[in-house]
Amino acid sequence: MPEPKSNELMEKIVSLCKRRGFIFQSSEIYGGINGFWDYGPLGAELKRNLREAWWNRMMREREDCVGLDASIILHRAVWKASGHEDTFADPMSTCKSCKKLIRSDQWWTLMTEQQWVQSLAALVEPGTDAFKGADLLKWAKGKGKHLAPQLALVRNPEVTLSWLAGEIEKGKRPADAREFYLYLATEQFGATGLITPCPHCGGELTAPRPFNLMLKTHTGPIESEENLAYLRPETAQAIFVQFKNVFDSSRVKIPFGIGQIGKAFRNEITPRNFTFRSREFEQMELEFFIPPDEAIRLIHGSVAKWDEGVDLTVPHANWGWEIWHRYWVAQRTQFYQDIGLGADVLDYYWQTKDELAHYARATVDILFKFPFGTEELEGIAARGDFDLTQHQKHSGKSLEIFDEELRNAAAKLTGEQKQEFIAEVQEDWNDHGKSREESAMFCEKLLRGTYLPHVIEPSAGLDRLTLAAICAAYAEEQKADVNGKVELRTVLRFHPRTAPIKVAIFPLLKNKPELVAKAREVYTLLKRHLASFYDESGAIGRRYARQDEAGTPFGITIDFETFEGVKEGANAGEKDTVTIRHRDDGRQERLKISELLPFLLEKTR
Amino acid sequence: MPEPKSNELMEKIVSLCKRRGFIFQSSEIYGGINGFWDYGPLGAELKRNLREAWWNRMMREREDCVGLDASIILHRAVWKASGHEDTFADPMSTCKSCKKLIRSDQWWTLMTEQQWVQSLAALVEPGTDAFKGADLLKWAKGKGKHLAPQLALVRNPEVTLSWLAGEIEKGKRPADAREFYLYLATEQFGATGLITPCPHCGGELTAPRPFNLMLKTHTGPIESEENLAYLRPETAQAIFVQFKNVFDSSRVKIPFGIGQIGKAFRNEITPRNFTFRSREFEQMELEFFIPPDEAIRLIHGSVAKWDEGVDLTVPHANWGWEIWHRYWVAQRTQFYQDIGLGADVLDYYWQTKDELAHYARATVDILFKFPFGTEELEGIAARGDFDLTQHQKHSGKSLEIFDEELRNAAAKLTGEQKQEFIAEVQEDWNDHGKSREESAMFCEKLLRGTYLPHVIEPSAGLDRLTLAAICAAYAEEQKADVNGKVELRTVLRFHPRTAPIKVAIFPLLKNKPELVAKAREVYTLLKRHLASFYDESGAIGRRYARQDEAGTPFGITIDFETFEGVKEGANAGEKDTVTIRHRDDGRQERLKISELLPFLLEKTR
Repeated sequence: MPEPKSNELMEKIVSLCKRRGFIFQSSEIYGGINGFWDYGPLGAELKRNLREAWWNRMMREREDCVGLDASIILHRAVWKASGHEDTFADPMSTCKSCKKLIRSDQWWTLMTEQQWVQSLAALVEPGTDAFKGADLLKWAKGKGKHLAPQLALVRNPEVTLSWLAGEIEKGKRPADAREFYLYLATEQFGATGLITPCPHCGGELTAPRPFNLMLKTHTGPIESEENLAYLRPETAQAIFVQFKNVFDSSRVKIPFGIGQIGKAFRNEITPRNFTFRSREFEQMELEFFIPPDEAIRLIHGSVAKWDEGVDLTVPHANWGWEIWHRYWVAQRTQFYQDIGLGADVLDYYWQTKDELAHYARATVDILFKFPFGTEELEGIAARGDFDLTQHQKHSGKSLEIFDEELRNAAAKLTGEQKQEFIAEVQEDWNDHGKSREESAMFCEKLLRGTYLPHVIEPSAGLDRLTLAAICAAYAEEQKADVNGKVELRTVLRFHPRTAPIKVAIFPLLKNKPELVAKAREVYTLLKRHLASFYDESGAIGRRYARQDEAGTPFGITIDFETFEGVKEGANAGEKDTVTIRHRDDGRQERLKISELLPFLLEKTR
Repeated sequence: MPEPKSNELMEKIVSLCKRRGFIFQSSEIYGGINGFWDYGPLGAELKRNLREAWWNRMMREREDCVGLDASIILHRAVWKASGHEDTFADPMSTCKSCKKLIRSDQWWTLMTEQQWVQSLAALVEPGTDAFKGADLLKWAKGKGKHLAPQLALVRNPEVTLSWLAGEIEKGKRPADAREFYLYLATEQFGATGLITPCPHCGGELTAPRPFNLMLKTHTGPIESEENLAYLRPETAQAIFVQFKNVFDSSRVKIPFGIGQIGKAFRNEITPRNFTFRSREFEQMELEFFIPPDEAIRLIHGSVAKWDEGVDLTVPHANWGWEIWHRYWVAQRTQFYQDIGLGADVLDYYWQTKDELAHYARATVDILFKFPFGTEELEGIAARGDFDLTQHQKHSGKSLEIFDEELRNAAAKLTGEQKQEFIAEVQEDWNDHGKSREESAMFCEKLLRGTYLPHVIEPSAGLDRLTLAAICAAYAEEQKADVNGKVELRTVLRFHPRTAPIKVAIFPLLKNKPELVAKAREVYTLLKRHLASFYDESGAIGRRYARQDEAGTPFGITIDFETFEGVKEGANAGEKDTVTIRHRDDGRQERLKISELLPFLLEKTR
């Protein structure tokens, strides 16, 4: 399948990933398995560093978040309650000719990648009906026969063209370029209207039908409906399901978060874009539980209003869901910036009201500018109390929490004030289509200090982040070698925090035992504390280049000055120093061996 | 189901795990799912620390090992080649009455846990036929009806007893206690001999049949044979499958290892012993690739022989598989010791020739003394070149490596020496049942410097290790409270390296702002670097006790002496000191705040 030229960069990255051991196709020696990838030595370290960065920032360094590590296979009832069993589906069509399966919402993208569409486009675009019948006829009887044998235009060129001409005469011309291909796939209107052509062979696609994305399995010795289980399609649900257990065992107070990193599985119809859309992937999700805004109002009199001036760095007790949501967008942006993904490579997409899931109050996607397009890295959703409500209802177990401060605040209200509060809530809820009974029940509980927490969910993909880190780091440099010959070299400019290898140690020459011995000594000193690599083979420039390609930010060379003392400059005469080379600008400086570890730890943590 | 009394300790541990947030039943609010467990906040941190300890020791601190992070779902052909699809099975029987499934090799263990077996045992044991018919008859018509309604003795007491008496008269008495229950389940010999009773109802079990333990799923939109895939039952195979990719991309040389940590799944018929035998678990596996002994002989003239005097701390180039195997047993033992699992809680089991898998040359199990028995924590197997051979054969891709040193050594041999070498190898291989053609082909390649590496596999279970760490840490103490009342308290004596929380920070009193402010300052200082917990609520003794139960090794208290200067002792008058309390002996010492971080990092890393 020919890829558009814009993917040349992506091809280079994929090739580098294999060559340097970042990412391999899963089961490659058996021809691979579509949608599954393996991380090689450098990739595994890179991914580990990103995973650690998330965990440290989101769990260890925070006082208000705790971790969870739940199983991939959960009780089937979890997915019933969450809605995944009934509605977690993509629309899918099948080709009646070649039997290939097409994710309906990817149809046009797939079409634009096909050779037959590209060759047809040259004949008709940009106008949708500015084509010459003779050109199409020639195409249909030539190229078309090989490229799209099942297309109506190819199977029956004269009939299709005359039908098309007739339609255009009647004024029923194709509305746009996309629809033009539907006309070419149709000899005449059938009962179901225009035919959608298969991107692969031009044949007729069936109408889209929902295809559930969860991978199924059976636990226990019998493959029965009773034993049916799913591989989790997201890590979030286990957090909701264990919310009460965590709350009861961990001395946390609302607001607080539960975070989890782990594998999830989605049976993507068409895995795409290298590791970006795969069938097995790793998520990093936080569910941050907050009081409903009504509780804030009871305790603090009002809920703080969001505007650009709000200081998002220090949480405040009178924040409602809207500011908490903004807070997490800011926090996550800061996280990306701190690992080297700054404003230049990120973008944001605020979902419109129409796009939001029915329970969601706001969702922001943090996007990354991949070579294949600007795509989602993380979604940050304000989900209300939808998830806990669902699990409470389906499990029959109370997931409500009791808040003493809230109860005390409510106890101070007069009967009249309470009635006023209830009336306000009822009016507000009524505007959101909820019944008087629902809001009355909610208020009654709230005034007793009890509620279901609401949730803000920053949900990131670790594989996507790993790929983003590689894409952001990828750079090519023109460099002259010692003979003045210019060569194109690849450098991965990883942030030192995420680089798989932090430092490489080189003796200037391999055949000088004292250089080698000292270099081994430095290596042994460093590797206990950070990922280090020792290399003595080849010219020093070659060794630098190899490390540049692996993304190693620092190179240490042990040379004769290490023993004989520095020859010139500020620290002339000083012994036991080494050269430290910076990957990104090639800058070299001399450091004492005793200063290396603190210097490197400072830079890489 | 009544548990034997020896499990009282285990019950306490399970209960502590839930209460303090170490381990929860998966999907608990939906009634749980058999064989799946979730790690709560403390458990997730404990497991992370153990995972990190393995990775750091086995990957980062070593020069000869690199990591891999492969997918859970691999190509089905992988499991065909590895033998899992055809032979990875446990024997299973079904009860013809209650339809329950019994893993045949667990039948007797299950039986001993049943109330009906326990009550019968009192009537007949220890002799196998020293019973009174009257007692059995009474039991059958009383207790038996409730406990084992489908047992022949219960359904037809007179017939069964008279048959049993007849058999004994004929000298065909039960051989042992186990067989006695077979007699009680049989009214008369059928075509298949004695009946094995179901532990649950006493009914008849079917003959054992193999039950494959791999969990199945389908990838891609159609549930066809072609799309069938398995969840990996071990992480090892992905390492073999990617061996060549790693070798080609990572500048490693034999001997070297590839390590992986990740989830694996086995459809255990009867998940047992808390998290010990579950259906979803995490493995930490290393495949350490070494040359075949014949290559060592060619290069070094001979292979070093194993005896107790061999220094296992520094690998030597003339080691063959046997010493490498011993080396890894020693390495892994050291690892366990370094995280607090010493000789007192470990044991070893060397598999006998009969027990070894056909391809294995030696296997040692490292066992841990769990409350429910001494069970496997890790297996260390010398697997020869079985795995790479299988994958090479099934994939048709060469997995051989080229060794220049070997080729050079072989090139120095005379024709006569080569013939001699080949003859020796052929004789040796012949003794192991291999054909002349096989050994000739092997020698021919070897003399050209080419071979398939052999492998030593230390394979550990992370969930088992987590459970072992909890069991080893669990202790109960009699402590007198301030009023002299003695209470039983639980302490988890985790090694500081593995403890989920490293240090807790307490202001002596909650209502003294200067104490609280200073305590917060210390907390903020520490938590960036290590898992820290701040607690100001309750009496200080109560706070210590809570941390003891969480296994926190160090407690720091900020008191008035922090401000006013130490009252007495060596550092009298000194300000900005805190009390640091040691969990295990309650010992307290004063440390300067500036000394805290280096002190704690030294102890916990």
